[in-house]
Amino acid sequence: MSDQTETQQGWLSDEDIETVRSRMPIVYVEAVPVRVDDHGVITHVGLLLRAMPDGTISRSVVSGRVLFRERLRDALIRNIEKDLGSLALPRIPVAPTPAAVIEYFPDSKVSGFTDPRQHAVSLVYVVPVEGICEPSQITLDIAWLTAEEANSPEVRAEMTSGQDRLLRLALAHAGCLP
Amino acid sequence: MSDQTETQQGWLSDEDIETVRSRMPIVYVEAVPVRVDDHGVITHVGLLLRAMPDGTISRSVVSGRVLFRERLRDALIRNIEKDLGSLALPRIPVAPTPAAVIEYFPDSKVSGFTDPRQHAVSLVYVVPVEGICEPSQITLDIAWLTAEEANSPEVRAEMTSGQDRLLRLALAHAGCLP
Amino acid sequence: MSDQTETQQGWLSDEDIETVRSRMPIVYVEAVPVRVDDHGVITHVGLLLRAMPDGTISRSVVSGRVLFRERLRDALIRNIEKDLGSLALPRIPVAPTPAAVIEYFPDSKVSGFTDPRQHAVSLVYVVPVEGICEPSQITLDIAWLTAEEANSPEVRAEMTSGQDRLLRLALAHAGCLP
Amino acid sequence: MSDQTETQQGWLSDEDIETVRSRMPIVYVEAVPVRVDDHGVITHVGLLLRAMPDGTISRSVVSGRVLFRERLRDALIRNIEKDLGSLALPRIPVAPTPAAVIEYFPDSKVSGFTDPRQHAVSLVYVVPVEGICEPSQITLDIAWLTAEEANSPEVRAEMTSGQDRLLRLALAHAGCLP
Repeated sequence: MSDQTETQQGWLSDEDIETVRSRMPIVYVEAVPVRVDDHGVITHVGLLLRAMPDGTISRSVVSGRVLFRERLRDALIRNIEKDLGSLALPRIPVAPTPAAVIEYFPDSKVSGFTDPRQHAVSLVYVVPVEGICEPSQITLDIAWLTAEEANSPEVRAEMTSGQDRLLRLALAHAGCLP
Repeated sequence: MSDQTETQQGWLSDEDIETVRSRMPIVYVEAVPVRVDDHGVITHVGLLLRAMPDGTISRSVVSGRVLFRERLRDALIRNIEKDLGSLALPRIPVAPTPAAVIEYFPDSKVSGFTDPRQHAVSLVYVVPVEGICEPSQITLDIAWLTAEEANSPEVRAEMTSGQDRLLRLALAHAGCLP
Repeated sequence: MSDQTETQQGWLSDEDIETVRSRMPIVYVEAVPVRVDDHGVITHVGLLLRAMPDGTISRSVVSGRVLFRERLRDALIRNIEKDLGSLALPRIPVAPTPAAVIEYFPDSKVSGFTDPRQHAVSLVYVVPVEGICEPSQITLDIAWLTAEEANSPEVRAEMTSGQDRLLRLALAHAGCLP
Repeated sequence: MSDQTETQQGWLSDEDIETVRSRMPIVYVEAVPVRVDDHGVITHVGLLLRAMPDGTISRSVVSGRVLFRERLRDALIRNIEKDLGSLALPRIPVAPTPAAVIEYFPDSKVSGFTDPRQHAVSLVYVVPVEGICEPSQITLDIAWLTAEEANSPEVRAEMTSGQDRLLRLALAHAGCLP
């Protein structure tokens, strides 16, 4: 999970957010960007390549904090634009219920999902994108893979923090886990 | 629920389907057509006006049988096109899990959802439509209402068979039940 | 939403939590306690009567903050025991996906769900309870109502902050919204 | 999927049901029986061993047809008792929305889920069982496995018709897919 940009423009100093992170669960949204056909079937999954909080450069989905007084839908759109650019044309789901709820902890033994910086509660959505996706400054690459490719041992090995498992949960929700 | 057109073109004679209907639960899909803004928030709900199986002319959502060897997604698209025309441009949801599961019975006391013809198990989806919707031959009118209007006593009184309750379940799933 | 007890025993001083609340969305869980029959059908909904953050004494569901490093399931159980006592025997749902996601804001115009203290993101679960429920110190009463009674204008009038709407969303998820 | 017992006691002759099966999608319910701890976390998954429609003796979940005029909840309980005995004490989920919707076709290329006898639309639920489970006459064995064991290559190899994939979808819904 990455939120370098928003902490710089945010309403909390870098120091303040470090203090809060050591004391409170933080609300996140994550989006699995997908390409769909005209039947709503996922054809490709978008995986970003970037520097992760755990120090690795690895594959992940779109991720970011929900800001104070920000609606979840607005946070989803803002973070998708941050990671995929402003021309991605995301189709935000009608239902606010997430595809999965992920709990990140510094300690990997608690839930299997880890974030060395914080305890985060993340609402995960599968979001079709119809426009042009361009890696932003902090994203090195976006790969569009089939569900089979995204679940291959090779790609799984490029994901840390439980992102590969998050992806399987999201694909299962969409009925297309191989 | 209406499927006059498909029984005429179907793979079962009218007589055969009557026989089956008196012996087996029938699989249906229903779609609540909605207009959404660019945040995925429902702005309007589409309600058809048509002759219903119970003999009334009343408001309902898109509805129809799933045919033999037909995928649920194909049945959704076919029935949406049947009721809203081929230019409706439906955005079929990525997840196959329905917003609601409705059980229709001839006897209104069983579930509160009634169909005098049959026992039907219906998978209900909320489907954004982006194109032009035109009432088909068997549909007299399509009204686009806000969630508040669709839940008003006046509009509720125009719905039979439990369609008003189906609509509330679908709006609740989308987080916009008033 | 109420968390008087936990702020007293918590890991943040009352002053600290006021500071954070004015800057960050806070993670909540809410539980709609229900009695079910052996078919899983809701027979009664439990509504608490208590002092609410908005200054009213009104009806609400179980509600409380998620603590730092606390699993959502643990937070659900802790808050249910806080409000219903330690003999309630809650059946925590298998799936972590909530029945509804509610966003509370100080400003009632943002989402219709209000909390004068904070911006809260609340994961709402429907939780069957099988044991003895006793109002805790801060709860004045627990009323067990049918879905019809809980949706009556009289009972709705006893709920503030959008709790009546939250209840309708939860009942719809359970398929028993009248 | 197995329904030998119910076709014998049913309201359609064996010949009639063969005729219908060749012309209509059939409504099924499937239940993944699980043992849960007091936090609702799945500790074990129950897998039956039995003769399957495809001619194999393999592992599967509880499965059966929905009968004419039967509620889905009643069909779930009846089929669980058929496969696990009358002392299983299933906790039928409060929400009627299934964990997954599976479409079975004779042709394995359509959805990857196969049933040589029919086109079936199956609503899949994850059902905690609290009592004693005993294999019925047509069930040779019930194995209680952890999620990890149930997903191992060895156990996967004992499942046909897409049952291993169904299990992954259900475990993902419950948040415990490894």
